[in-house]
Amino acid sequence: MNEHVGEDSGTVVCVSIVAESILEGRLVEDLKRAGALGWTITPARGQGPRERRVSEIEGGNVKVETLVSPAVAERIWELLTANYFADYAIAAWTSEVRVARPQRYIGPPAPETPAR
Amino acid sequence: MNEHVGEDSGTVVCVSIVAESILEGRLVEDLKRAGALGWTITPARGQGPRERRVSEIEGGNVKVETLVSPAVAERIWELLTANYFADYAIAAWTSEVRVARPQRYIGPPAPETPAR
Amino acid sequence: MNEHVGEDSGTVVCVSIVAESILEGRLVEDLKRAGALGWTITPARGQGPRERRVSEIEGGNVKVETLVSPAVAERIWELLTANYFADYAIAAWTSEVRVARPQRYIGPPAPETPAR
Repeated sequence: MNEHVGEDSGTVVCVSIVAESILEGRLVEDLKRAGALGWTITPARGQGPRERRVSEIEGGNVKVETLVSPAVAERIWELLTANYFADYAIAAWTSEVRVARPQRYIGPPAPETPAR
Repeated sequence: MNEHVGEDSGTVVCVSIVAESILEGRLVEDLKRAGALGWTITPARGQGPRERRVSEIEGGNVKVETLVSPAVAERIWELLTANYFADYAIAAWTSEVRVARPQRYIGPPAPETPAR
Repeated sequence: MNEHVGEDSGTVVCVSIVAESILEGRLVEDLKRAGALGWTITPARGQGPRERRVSEIEGGNVKVETLVSPAVAERIWELLTANYFADYAIAAWTSEVRVARPQRYIGPPAPETPAR
């Protein structure tokens, strides 16, 4: 893999989600609940599989990206599977990426742990 | 790789293309022809190699992303090579990503197969 | 890895940076100085780690992507580390991607070499 980011570097999981804009607030809450510490949202539009055109009338789509630990990525997938995949035209994928200062994204050990 | 997306998961190819906005309709038609079942479009701008500034006057750029099978990715590359690379300031790249429900992106066996 | 992009293909590093919009011009100058030949900018917004909400008031964020050689990626990381990470809420990550015509992104041998 890339060795160029120096000593204080490591691999985290980049989770990308494309969904209707109206789901943005709910998705972000679920990302937080899963333990994500940050996310980036870009406006998007497009068409999903099965010719289900994603509603541009409703304000288009958003693409949400978050860099997390593998454990948090797993929780995000569980939430997507439980709450979204059956009902909404959501595309979601993950890849491993290299970051400087991985602890910035991996953060505290567990999201439900009370603040110290 | 990421094992966190569960049993019904697999690897697909994410093809990313950045091109002038005026090419969007044509690109999408070519993606469909190659067998892509869905795509995401985000507004973009920027500069390409060789100092060919991408025309912001003409409406900027678009970034098109599509998740497809390796075979469809190959057809997309053939179409990009045949129809775009020589004439347009297009950047395109691929990476392997992990998805839940890969059949959602890989879809029916061949795009030219008549509907059942 | 993906073999579908043909003979004239290779792996380059995709560097993604999410930063406040006001940093865009400075970031682009630093990318050029590091040897990047092209970049794509998309509008973005979001929240970073440590609950530092990224200033939407100031015009939101931008996501900058550039495809470069490993050596240029290393210079970009050095510049980010020296000039940005301590002072700004920047997220940055890298991944290896497959491109057609890699020389298009890897370009001339060194950025400080005088023009021929």
